[in-house]
Amino acid sequence: MTTSRMEAFSDGVIAIIITIMVLELRPPHDTTLAGLRPLLPVIGSYIMSFIYIGIYWNNHHHLLHVTEHIDGRALWANLHLLFWLSLVPFVTAWMGENHFSQWPVALYGCILILSAIAYTILVRVLLAAPGNELLASALGSDLKGKISMVIYAIGIALAFVHPWLALALYIAVATIWLIPDRRIERKIS
Amino acid sequence: MTTSRMEAFSDGVIAIIITIMVLELRPPHDTTLAGLRPLLPVIGSYIMSFIYIGIYWNNHHHLLHVTEHIDGRALWANLHLLFWLSLVPFVTAWMGENHFSQWPVALYGCILILSAIAYTILVRVLLAAPGNELLASALGSDLKGKISMVIYAIGIALAFVHPWLALALYIAVATIWLIPDRRIERKIS
Amino acid sequence: MTTSRMEAFSDGVIAIIITIMVLELRPPHDTTLAGLRPLLPVIGSYIMSFIYIGIYWNNHHHLLHVTEHIDGRALWANLHLLFWLSLVPFVTAWMGENHFSQWPVALYGCILILSAIAYTILVRVLLAAPGNELLASALGSDLKGKISMVIYAIGIALAFVHPWLALALYIAVATIWLIPDRRIERKIS
Amino acid sequence: MTTSRMEAFSDGVIAIIITIMVLELRPPHDTTLAGLRPLLPVIGSYIMSFIYIGIYWNNHHHLLHVTEHIDGRALWANLHLLFWLSLVPFVTAWMGENHFSQWPVALYGCILILSAIAYTILVRVLLAAPGNELLASALGSDLKGKISMVIYAIGIALAFVHPWLALALYIAVATIWLIPDRRIERKIS
Repeated sequence: MTTSRMEAFSDGVIAIIITIMVLELRPPHDTTLAGLRPLLPVIGSYIMSFIYIGIYWNNHHHLLHVTEHIDGRALWANLHLLFWLSLVPFVTAWMGENHFSQWPVALYGCILILSAIAYTILVRVLLAAPGNELLASALGSDLKGKISMVIYAIGIALAFVHPWLALALYIAVATIWLIPDRRIERKIS
Repeated sequence: MTTSRMEAFSDGVIAIIITIMVLELRPPHDTTLAGLRPLLPVIGSYIMSFIYIGIYWNNHHHLLHVTEHIDGRALWANLHLLFWLSLVPFVTAWMGENHFSQWPVALYGCILILSAIAYTILVRVLLAAPGNELLASALGSDLKGKISMVIYAIGIALAFVHPWLALALYIAVATIWLIPDRRIERKIS
Repeated sequence: MTTSRMEAFSDGVIAIIITIMVLELRPPHDTTLAGLRPLLPVIGSYIMSFIYIGIYWNNHHHLLHVTEHIDGRALWANLHLLFWLSLVPFVTAWMGENHFSQWPVALYGCILILSAIAYTILVRVLLAAPGNELLASALGSDLKGKISMVIYAIGIALAFVHPWLALALYIAVATIWLIPDRRIERKIS
Repeated sequence: MTTSRMEAFSDGVIAIIITIMVLELRPPHDTTLAGLRPLLPVIGSYIMSFIYIGIYWNNHHHLLHVTEHIDGRALWANLHLLFWLSLVPFVTAWMGENHFSQWPVALYGCILILSAIAYTILVRVLLAAPGNELLASALGSDLKGKISMVIYAIGIALAFVHPWLALALYIAVATIWLIPDRRIERKIS
């Protein structure tokens, strides 16, 4: 089995996830610039989630690029990742509409950590499939993935001290991932 | 005619179906963890439908993988399957928002059984097309499909005794399908 | 230029159009079977539009299958068709929510006729591009397309006598198109 | 890395953007033709945005057609473009629902200019990647892009004199872009 249709389906789901978040941006009835002010936290959380979903799409793209064989377990590991990503629009809306209060910010972190775990499981399942030696050599130790999960966990805990501490940590993780996985790019170039 | 564009269109529709269900998860105004409690049945029905749609996508993927030729009848048999699947978000929402009461649970089972019948029709239409010998030898007797429909029918009837009996049976069917069609995987490996 | 990306984009738009119509099916608060009764006209108009969009997707699939070359004009002729099809969910909702009253039914017919005209324009633009001889020989006189437009026009007029007369004619056109374009299938088999 | 999956993902996002705008067209309860009158500005702004998104899709299609190599930076430049395009449904709704009043019309122009800047960045990133000589020779000086941005800027300023002056300029830019990039088409034919 090749990866093409799994890529196509994932592209579809991720494209919808990244786009339906914008439906939360309800146009205000006020037609002055002041009318947009209440939307600022909604726009802020949209931008953060857009970047996060973009990071997942980029890494997913790189990951499947060096994957040669998939099996039934990989299809389910992929759906499991898409499940957690599909909850991002919900936590984004809850967080944005409530001006980044603590529980929504903590739950946002939980979805991020669960997505990261799902991505790790997908990588392991792909590595376990026979014939994916290129992937194994390209990935290495996944230090960045492990560090991210630790930072997410600290962020979730700090959300109850002050939500902006959590957000700062989530943004920090996004920043270290914004650079796509050079390890893979180097291998395939 | 090859299967590629039929796959692409089905991927698109199934990706949208699986993702728009999450729009039913309306963020609560309450920003405490208690605010999420009323959403639990909605989340529960979303998870069940996500898994069901995932099963259909997986089996559809396997099915078309061993299909070499399609004709106009196959395009319509495929659209017929997509029609019933497109009603899944509606029954999921009706069931989740009404805490799994009996009529919504029974209707959910009806959509499951009608989707299963549509899938069976699609398989038959593909088998009837010339040049699909690989598919015929890969599929065998479809015992699992027949058992599923019997369990769905019992589930719909039991929904009026107690909805949870029906849900238990729907979950049982999902469980036996979570393992993708090994018959096909064995043939093509 | 090949047709592959135009097909992929059209598949995406048509998949979304056919699926978002189901969002009009709002789950009722009533959990008895009687609660579904007010939804019957909405479901009825959804089924009709699902079949119409399915017909367009099928014919579009057949059309591009025998098209070898496209140019910039073809991309716009295709977008023009997608524009009219994108209004189908709107007229479907207006018609379904208002129990098939005369103006919504007439407007539905107008969108059908404008989609048919847009499809005809797309065919002409593709025929005008050099190197599409296979398409020209496959299409023939397009008698079915001309008859459809005449029936739509009669249907729109009859909507003001009684909406069901118009609906009967729309269903009649759908029926004659349900059979995909055998002319093309014969040529390419 | 080839462009195919970046094209597929962009097609998905653009297809969703162009289609979800139609969800703003809420069917009126009034079933007479007069019931549609309040929707006219909504339809008008939908048509303009449909054409703009269509122009971006067309130019994106042409651009990637002559691009042979992409890297991680190109993936992010592309996501950056998709981000601004994803805000088009929001400004379209704000403008349409408020009968083209000055702030919404000015913000609409801002999103257009930011999308244009994002497109220019994408072109530069693609040009900077090694092996895209065909692209460089096909693009030339991008005079049309520079003129567009100047007209957008004038339009945004004029929105505060009278919104229709701004709209006239936005329509003027759309008109000069409706013709797809002949420079590229000439090169690849």
